Amino acid sequence: MPFSSLIDFLGTFAFAISGIRLASGKQIDWFGAYIIGLVTAIGGGTLRDLLLDVRPFWMLDPNYFIATGWALLATLLFKEQLLRWGNTLFLFDTIGLGLFTIVGITKSLEAGLPFWVCVVMGTITGSLGGVIRDVLLNEVPLLFRKDIYALACVAGGAVYFGCAALQLPKEITESAAAAVVILSRWLAVQFHIHLPQLPPIEQNPGKS
Amino acid sequence: MPFSSLIDFLGTFAFAISGIRLASGKQIDWFGAYIIGLVTAIGGGTLRDLLLDVRPFWMLDPNYFIATGWALLATLLFKEQLLRWGNTLFLFDTIGLGLFTIVGITKSLEAGLPFWVCVVMGTITGSLGGVIRDVLLNEVPLLFRKDIYALACVAGGAVYFGCAALQLPKEITESAAAAVVILSRWLAVQFHIHLPQLPPIEQNPGKS
Amino acid sequence: MPFSSLIDFLGTFAFAISGIRLASGKQIDWFGAYIIGLVTAIGGGTLRDLLLDVRPFWMLDPNYFIATGWALLATLLFKEQLLRWGNTLFLFDTIGLGLFTIVGITKSLEAGLPFWVCVVMGTITGSLGGVIRDVLLNEVPLLFRKDIYALACVAGGAVYFGCAALQLPKEITESAAAAVVILSRWLAVQFHIHLPQLPPIEQNPGKS
Repeated sequence: MPFSSLIDFLGTFAFAISGIRLASGKQIDWFGAYIIGLVTAIGGGTLRDLLLDVRPFWMLDPNYFIATGWALLATLLFKEQLLRWGNTLFLFDTIGLGLFTIVGITKSLEAGLPFWVCVVMGTITGSLGGVIRDVLLNEVPLLFRKDIYALACVAGGAVYFGCAALQLPKEITESAAAAVVILSRWLAVQFHIHLPQLPPIEQNPGKS
Repeated sequence: MPFSSLIDFLGTFAFAISGIRLASGKQIDWFGAYIIGLVTAIGGGTLRDLLLDVRPFWMLDPNYFIATGWALLATLLFKEQLLRWGNTLFLFDTIGLGLFTIVGITKSLEAGLPFWVCVVMGTITGSLGGVIRDVLLNEVPLLFRKDIYALACVAGGAVYFGCAALQLPKEITESAAAAVVILSRWLAVQFHIHLPQLPPIEQNPGKS
Repeated sequence: MPFSSLIDFLGTFAFAISGIRLASGKQIDWFGAYIIGLVTAIGGGTLRDLLLDVRPFWMLDPNYFIATGWALLATLLFKEQLLRWGNTLFLFDTIGLGLFTIVGITKSLEAGLPFWVCVVMGTITGSLGGVIRDVLLNEVPLLFRKDIYALACVAGGAVYFGCAALQLPKEITESAAAAVVILSRWLAVQFHIHLPQLPPIEQNPGKS
């Protein structure tokens, strides 16, 4: 774990809140909301660990389940205030994205994978939870539609391996990469920076 | 296998029927219906085995594919009668839920996992198939919306470890836990017991 | 690898194009389109490798990511021409289906699995990418609704084991099986051959 478990807890909490909030108003009950929050927080790391063929991280530490419980409780108790706390939650969420990306890269490096696979695994760790959340809520994943999200993970991964190529110390490499993830996402949201969208293309009805 | 394979067959049959019925009337062809029935029946155990890093159970026994074939045949031949058989199918389905949950717990215990992970794995075994079914049919999973379903698995898991802590014999522990899953689900449906739903929460447009 | 990597590249390219085209006009940005194209191309083989408990094939070869990049570029540059190229792309896609199915069968045989599991794994390898694509795009998978697609993989798998039972040489077995996949799919599309659809069945509201 390259960062303190406090940041890990806050990232999980913020990811879970983002799942629970999107579940609200969709006739989903408390337990369903808990599961959606949980899957948002741990879905990416779970696929990463399956792909790496290691024991899923959450089997070794119940704190991910506990943080999601706190997220549900906070959402139920303070739903009036959540909008006001939007920026704080966005901060946690973005820090969580940076952290999860670096954890994904580090675990993949330890498994002996080449650098480009590590960047993919960092991106999966940071992004997939939100994709599963949107699929469960029956929406086209936000990730594909707007904001710089997965691309921020890719940028952070590139910086990680740039720093590693320069033989910078591990702490600096990890901090710089996380900072790039966090800053890319933050700047993209602040300044409404989007990638261009794919224009409509005529479809060939014979394909499936 | 803690129960007879007849119960296993009936549970698979009932899970597959629930998938095939929900697929009906959605312009899905026979083979598509077969696949949806199959995934409903084996989806949960497949993720469990991936997470446990053991060979997926259905690779060792073609009966799950055969039971799904019988389910498709029964649905096609007796579609008029299916509604009348609703209670029998619900009974199979609920017994299957209890059985699958216990199988999930037992396999996870054998893998040396702590008790709370075993409860999670039992719940995944019993519930995930229905979630995949609903995602494939492009609906918000029923599991999140109504009825006590996954929560019945959690309750059964708690009873399992309660009995185990009292050092009751394996047979009694497993039977009691399965009975609690089946009874919780049965009572919830009979008496329309639901968890409260998550109220609408104002969304912060900056999050994705 | 039973076929040349050129065919592998073309199959990946065609699968990726089918993902990117279906993503067009849905307010999906370039990076989202890239990911959907990638998942369409590698999703089936990834689940196969997870089920077989081997390292996912794309971790060993960046060409799958590169072919998807070319597919995105081609889609953006030549979107006017794509419809006219429909038959060529359909040819690649169908050849890719045949190839991916055989790769799935061969890898599963090497893992020591019984023949019917190998047919299932070949079908997963060829078909699952398109299912994930449709789930991400929030549609009921085309696979379940029309055309002979997964069934062509099953037919090819049956021919594979028929040839193997006759002790035909490996090259002939693989070519015959791939040809059957390709021909079944091609003929089904040319002559609008469909399986019957599942009729509507009255639903029992108590089930979830």
